[in-house]
Amino acid sequence: MNPPEPLVLIVSGPSGSGKSTLVQKLIELPTTLLAISCTTRPPRKTENDGKWYNFVTEAEFQEMVARGEFLEYAQVFGKNWYGTPSKWLDQARAQRKDLVLEIDVQGALQVKQKLPGAVAIFVLPPSRAELEHRIRARGQDSEDEIRRRLERARQEMLNYSSYDFAVVNDDLERAGREVQAIALASRCRVARNEEQIRDILKSFGG
Amino acid sequence: MNPPEPLVLIVSGPSGSGKSTLVQKLIELPTTLLAISCTTRPPRKTENDGKWYNFVTEAEFQEMVARGEFLEYAQVFGKNWYGTPSKWLDQARAQRKDLVLEIDVQGALQVKQKLPGAVAIFVLPPSRAELEHRIRARGQDSEDEIRRRLERARQEMLNYSSYDFAVVNDDLERAGREVQAIALASRCRVARNEEQIRDILKSFGG
Repeated sequence: MNPPEPLVLIVSGPSGSGKSTLVQKLIELPTTLLAISCTTRPPRKTENDGKWYNFVTEAEFQEMVARGEFLEYAQVFGKNWYGTPSKWLDQARAQRKDLVLEIDVQGALQVKQKLPGAVAIFVLPPSRAELEHRIRARGQDSEDEIRRRLERARQEMLNYSSYDFAVVNDDLERAGREVQAIALASRCRVARNEEQIRDILKSFGG
Repeated sequence: MNPPEPLVLIVSGPSGSGKSTLVQKLIELPTTLLAISCTTRPPRKTENDGKWYNFVTEAEFQEMVARGEFLEYAQVFGKNWYGTPSKWLDQARAQRKDLVLEIDVQGALQVKQKLPGAVAIFVLPPSRAELEHRIRARGQDSEDEIRRRLERARQEMLNYSSYDFAVVNDDLERAGREVQAIALASRCRVARNEEQIRDILKSFGG
């Protein structure tokens, strides 16, 4: 019997929506595995290679593209490249875990096309004012970057209907419970449990 | 603004699958309301009218059918009638709660036809042996009835693919967490939150 295809949980949301904190809530679950993305953007001071990203050169990234090693990849702001290596899907399959992808809208659409059973969660800020407040509080961005992030947030959110679930992150506790519930419930979909159900039916004589 | 249509959570499963205990887990949630079914079957010793069922006469039941008062109804074992009055949907709408229906496969199919957004959960026993053990342990049924219940369980389970979710009740704690997660996750479906998402988008200028 081959290991079943892993459940793939996509989490997207604008920068500052609290998406990464909610991804943390997902990977607290014993059933999940986080895919580490590759990127050509330079690491921030606090970032170690291999924790949230594998930092690669543009040349390395393009070689991986040429070898077809990405489940999805995209260029952001016409500048840095981001991609999820397909090997994470193999690892999740081998470990019988659910694979969590923290990726943007472009990437989510690519994954949904390749893996129609993937479950896509969109994290929304409660309002523009709150998102702007959070981005400013982080203190990492110039006025120009803040404007660009807010405009990008708006554009990303226009794609909400490509997602299965929406989590409004106005209360981190509640939003955390919601993403965990989405993961747990998705494991219970009939389509993911046909084999076990048929085994039970067999015990009844079919 | 009209109250949104209630989320309807259908729970089905063979007698002895632990379905009623899992329904209890659902109605522990502050967001849910249990629909009380009407039935023409005689109450068991432990049953009060109005807690799990409203016990009615065959004539009363048929009058309700004639007045179109049921969301779903069916005859079980060609003998007793069971039905869910539509008024529960109105109550759930008014209270802005999710409506929980503990109904059989025939009823579930009727509700899914009328309310395609309803979420249907099928509770399965882990095996025939375990179901038979539980039915015998209850000590309420004759050998004939036990045989009939097991055969009916098999027939009900053949309809599993009409359901959205399957919960195998081999561990009540885990199964309870699963049904609660299904309820919570279902509230997060994008289709149920369009209005809130559009309001957030409006704050970004549309």
